[in-house]
This record gives sequence, C-alpha cells and structure tokens, in this order.
Amino acid sequence: MSVVTLLTDFGHRDWFVAAMKGVIYGIHPRARIVDITHEIDPGQVSSAAFALKCSYDCFPAGTIHVAVVDPGVGGPRAAILVRTKRYFFVGPDNGILSLALENEKILEIRRLENARYFRQPVSATFHGRDVFAPSAAHLGRGIPPSRFGPRQGGYQRLPWLSPVNKKGILHGTTVYVDRFGNVITNLPASWVPAARKYSLRVPGIRKPIPVLSFYEAAPLGSPLVLAGSHGYLEIAVNGGSAARELKIGAQTSVMLRLDH
Amino acid sequence: MSVVTLLTDFGHRDWFVAAMKGVIYGIHPRARIVDITHEIDPGQVSSAAFALKCSYDCFPAGTIHVAVVDPGVGGPRAAILVRTKRYFFVGPDNGILSLALENEKILEIRRLENARYFRQPVSATFHGRDVFAPSAAHLGRGIPPSRFGPRQGGYQRLPWLSPVNKKGILHGTTVYVDRFGNVITNLPASWVPAARKYSLRVPGIRKPIPVLSFYEAAPLGSPLVLAGSHGYLEIAVNGGSAARELKIGAQTSVMLRLDH
Amino acid sequence: MSVVTLLTDFGHRDWFVAAMKGVIYGIHPRARIVDITHEIDPGQVSSAAFALKCSYDCFPAGTIHVAVVDPGVGGPRAAILVRTKRYFFVGPDNGILSLALENEKILEIRRLENARYFRQPVSATFHGRDVFAPSAAHLGRGIPPSRFGPRQGGYQRLPWLSPVNKKGILHGTTVYVDRFGNVITNLPASWVPAARKYSLRVPGIRKPIPVLSFYEAAPLGSPLVLAGSHGYLEIAVNGGSAARELKIGAQTSVMLRLDH
Repeated sequence: MSVVTLLTDFGHRDWFVAAMKGVIYGIHPRARIVDITHEIDPGQVSSAAFALKCSYDCFPAGTIHVAVVDPGVGGPRAAILVRTKRYFFVGPDNGILSLALENEKILEIRRLENARYFRQPVSATFHGRDVFAPSAAHLGRGIPPSRFGPRQGGYQRLPWLSPVNKKGILHGTTVYVDRFGNVITNLPASWVPAARKYSLRVPGIRKPIPVLSFYEAAPLGSPLVLAGSHGYLEIAVNGGSAARELKIGAQTSVMLRLDH
Repeated sequence: MSVVTLLTDFGHRDWFVAAMKGVIYGIHPRARIVDITHEIDPGQVSSAAFALKCSYDCFPAGTIHVAVVDPGVGGPRAAILVRTKRYFFVGPDNGILSLALENEKILEIRRLENARYFRQPVSATFHGRDVFAPSAAHLGRGIPPSRFGPRQGGYQRLPWLSPVNKKGILHGTTVYVDRFGNVITNLPASWVPAARKYSLRVPGIRKPIPVLSFYEAAPLGSPLVLAGSHGYLEIAVNGGSAARELKIGAQTSVMLRLDH
Repeated sequence: MSVVTLLTDFGHRDWFVAAMKGVIYGIHPRARIVDITHEIDPGQVSSAAFALKCSYDCFPAGTIHVAVVDPGVGGPRAAILVRTKRYFFVGPDNGILSLALENEKILEIRRLENARYFRQPVSATFHGRDVFAPSAAHLGRGIPPSRFGPRQGGYQRLPWLSPVNKKGILHGTTVYVDRFGNVITNLPASWVPAARKYSLRVPGIRKPIPVLSFYEAAPLGSPLVLAGSHGYLEIAVNGGSAARELKIGAQTSVMLRLDH
C-alpha cells in the first residue's frame, strides 16, 4: 500500500483534482489517494503550508504528500521532491512544504526535472496534472528519488514567527482561522502547564480570555482559549465562532500571561 | 474489504477530515473510506442524524459508520460503538446515531474507553482524530467490540416527530432542505397510494400543492410534491428551488389530504 | 482494478454522492471511485459536459465514467451506456456525455433498461443511486454491455460552437469560468504558433489582451491569454481573477488576431 495525499487550491467546482487522480491511478493503480484540502484560498501558499504542517504526520510512514499551491506555475520556480526519514514531499519550491519540513529529518532533496516522469505535453498552467501527479505516482511505484533530477541543497522557507517571552509574558500572533471560527495562534500549548491559570489578551478586547481545558468549560457563547489539536493555543467561543464574535482574524498580536 | 464512512461538520477548508483518514490508514491499510458529508452546519446534530438515516443502508453489510458532530467534545458526553445486525456505528452519544438506529436491530452498545485504541495524546478538541477514527480502524481490523469498553444499556435519542392522522388529514412537518432546495417532510411516501390524488397544504401558500410522480410532471417553475428517494414526501419546484421560491425551510407544518 | 468516476450536481452538503458510492461498493468492492466534481450548478448539463470533456482522458483505459446531471429524472429521457475504444460512459441521454464522446471512437451504445441491474425499488428522483450507480458497478464487475438493454443508434448532442475564421481573424466565444476566474474560450490553443504574436479582443475591453506563455509573463494584476491545460485559449489575470476584474463570463464573443 502507498498513500498519496493531495493539498491544493484547486477547489471542488472544476475537474482539476480529478485530473491529478486519473493520472496517478494510470501510473500507480494501487495508490490510496487522500485529499488534505483543495479549498486553500487561491495562491495562499502560507495557509497551505500551515494545513500541511498540521496534518502530514497523521499519515503512515511512507506516505507521499503532494502540495500544489503554485502561483508561479510555468515560470522559473523549481519543482522539488523531498525525502525525509518518514515521508516524501512533492511540490513547487515556493515554501509550501517548509513548515512541515521544519519538524522532519531531511535525507534528500531533488529537483523534478526528468521529463520521462511527466505527462506529455506539459502545459504551462497545470503542473499539478503534468509534473507533480505523475512524478509522485512513479515515486509511489518505487522509482528512486535520484532518478527524478539533480540534488538541491536547501528549500524555500516561509517565515514562521515564534512567540517572544518578555518578562514572563508571551507575545505571539494568530496564524489561521478554521471553519468553526476558531483562531489558531503560534503559542505552543506546551507553555501552559495544566496546574496554573493563564489568560490571553487581545488588543481591542477588554476582558482577558481564560485558558480552559475544553469548549464546554466556558459558558455557552463565551470566549475561551484552549490547547488545539495541532499543539497550539486557539481562541474559541463555546457554541459560536470566535473569529466572527470577537472580530479576530489571522495576523493579530496576542499576549499570554499567568493570572495573579 | 471493509468500508468506513465518515460524517462530520468539519468542512472541506481545513485538514480535519484528512487527519482522520491518515489515522485510519495507519491502523487499517485496507479500509475503503467514504465521505457521507462534512458540510453539516457546525454543531447541528439533528441534520447529521438525518443524513445518516438517509444513507447508511446503501452500504454493504459490515460497513462501519463514523459520525462526529460533537459540540460537547472534551466534556462528559460518552463515546459509543453500536453493533447492529448489519452495521457498526461509532460516534459521540449525543443523538447523532439515533435516527439510523431506530430502524436497526441493535446487538450491543459499548463505550469507547480503552485508551489502547486511541491516538495519543488525546486532544481536548479533536476526538474525531484521536478517539473515533482509531477506534473505528481497530474495529475494522477485527478487534471485537467487547475490547473497547464496558457495555451501555441505551443511547441518546433525538425526537423524530411522526405525523398525526386527524380525520383523514395527515399533519406533519418539514425536516430538511437539500442543496436543490427540495424540502423534505416527515410524511412517509407509503401513505400516498399511486392510484389516488393527494395534495399538500402549507401555511402561507394559497394553492394546495399536488402530489405527482416526477419533477417534470409539473409545469416548469411550478411546485409539486413527490415521493423522495429517502421514503418521505418532499416539496419541489420543477427546474427550481422550492425552499427559495416558496420560502419554506425546516420545521414548517404541512397537511396532506386526499383531493375531492 | 477498475476506476469509476462520478460527476454530478449533487453537491457536498447532502448524502447523495455517498449513497451512490455505497451502492457501488456493495456490488463491486474492488472499484476505485474518483469524484470528478459534484459542484456543477443544479441542472447545468452543459457545464457538466465540459468538465467531463476536459478530464475523462486523464484516466486509465477501462475507466467507467458516470455522469449524472439529470433534470429530467423520472421522465421519458433514456439512460445509456456507451462503450468506446478506451472507456465506458454511463448517464442520462441528455447531452451530458456528448462533448467527451466527440473525441472518442464509439463501439456500442445501450439503453439501461434491465431492472435486474437496478437498485430496487427505483425511486422517481434519484436514478444516480438506483439506476446509474448499480449499472456502472455491475459493468465494472464484468457484466457485458449487451446485458443492460437494447442497442441505440446515436445519442443526444449538445451544440459545441467551433470558432470561425474570417479573413485571418478567429471569431469564437467563452465557454466556462473556473474557480480561479480564468475564462476558457472555444479557441484551440493549436491555432497560435509559439513563434508569432497574437492578441485577443473582447467587446467592451479597450486594450487587446496579449497571448503569452505563462501567468507570470504578464505584470502582476494584468490580463493575458494563454494556452490552458485543456487545449483551449483562456483569459487570465496574473495573480487575480479575469472573470471578476474584466467582468467576463461564459457566452462572451471574442476575436483572436495576429499582431502587426
């Protein structure tokens, strides 16, 4: 068995994702294809990188993660394959893989340049179908990474702001809003020991938001902060949408402090 | 082969459904995973229960149905596994399974409490990934229900209003609006013999709506009532949306009577 | 292995697609089911036909393509199975298959009339579940086309306007807008040799739009025309949405000419 995941901004209205799957099955009939998401806002590489970071390690070792949010398609950006200790990653070298790769032991990076593993003719606009899907499928069938192209030393990174500790107050930022309106921060949940009481301050919101253990620990309709399933603190409203009710989006600064 | 279905309110924008699938394939590589829907409105347990009721028995015997709309996640609500004569059902014990279970012969109900079958650490907010997916995957691999936790006598039920017959007029209610704007009622289609003419009255709509056999039996743009594929009467507009054009939603009372 | 694709207007909110998959797996457990799209606007047969045309031949030979946008369900329209040299197509005979079939060598057309291969009872509104899915699944298991019903000579066609060459200027039309706002025309990309400079004129847009090779060949925010991955010229805006920024939809006339 080999699992191939797909993460794109292609949406569900058109046939783009299906074209990639058709190409994969044509080359690698035993693949198990899993959609991570295709609803990344068009061209938003950083959201895609965050979604990959939060999900890739739920998959079994050997999984091939294909991530294609690729506003530079057809231009000079490289296409790469990264082999880590547990996984393979395939995508444009524009930072989309970088947040996931930060946590991985990288063994090898190759540029996808061997046209033998491309679908022909290669279009100028759809490398998901013509370059990434067929290369990933050949990889899944056992073609070794060295056959896809020359080695490359590093990869494009996206900035990932780590929070800063100033005199015991942790200064961070919000990074992602999920469909429930939960607002995910860059504050690691591990900074908040269960035995002590913390709260989060958000500019423009008068009352500090308490850190609690689960949604229903706050009164219905009230805000809380809790350890999200991705390992970061997130701002939520029990039974509601924090993004809508508190009017917070991504890139909002937040401060976490111990209560007195 | 074993089919595992997933029904959630996790949407398609984020990586939540993919995380569940990654966990399942890691434990049970031969699973066939089918999405029932992930677009249940956040927290709407009753819509999820209706969707499960309408779809679960299209699947082959032995299918494991995993349904997670779980506003009480992390709190005291139980997680359960229900074995019926033909299927397995896994989900929070908040009523989500109950409309489907009404039609099933229940053999065994277990609480999911054996942490050996959970993903560790178990988060406070994402039991879909950490409790329900791995438990379902182990079940699919052949772990017997008795290993997951203690027996439980019953399960939470949602109210399902049955229509009432008053002097030959059937009084019911609308229960669900589908993407086409068809408005599904709780009136069993079996009450309407094909040989006789019926019509439906809806408060605020002057003309009774005739019961017909298929969409195009009504003039283009005109309303009709017909036997839906789920076994209930539904209100439709040929070539249009009954919900939009007649301004009807769920929880509207309706009356069915024989024409004179 | 056999791949079965599904293309419908059933959306992702309800359980309709899942019901089809459950029926397929019940009959044909080894099927690989791929969604082409389910977000066709309700009843828009021509969009569905275009999506099928653009994607079907990415799939391996032997794939069974099931396309169900079927406003005439339950009425007199026929249900058909078409065997071509490389593929099978299953759907209502309302034109949905016709744009794909234009490029295929047709070997046999059969009406789906053998109720032995239907799910019983057959509803009036959901032939996707009751007629098309089970027939496709039996076909995938190896039942020969001749068993499904009588031969039929032709099939319903949708008009596909070919562009017209008047004194070296190619007059065409736009046919589809994708999720990125790229506007696809009916002008074959093969009409534009790479070595010469062309531009496209659109009524109401003062400046001709240059034909370039990839998105980033235009300045950020500027329009361009390029060869789409489907083999037709498409109008795009680098980093934006041509449909939104140029206010163009489908059915807009366009003119392509050589630059002087």
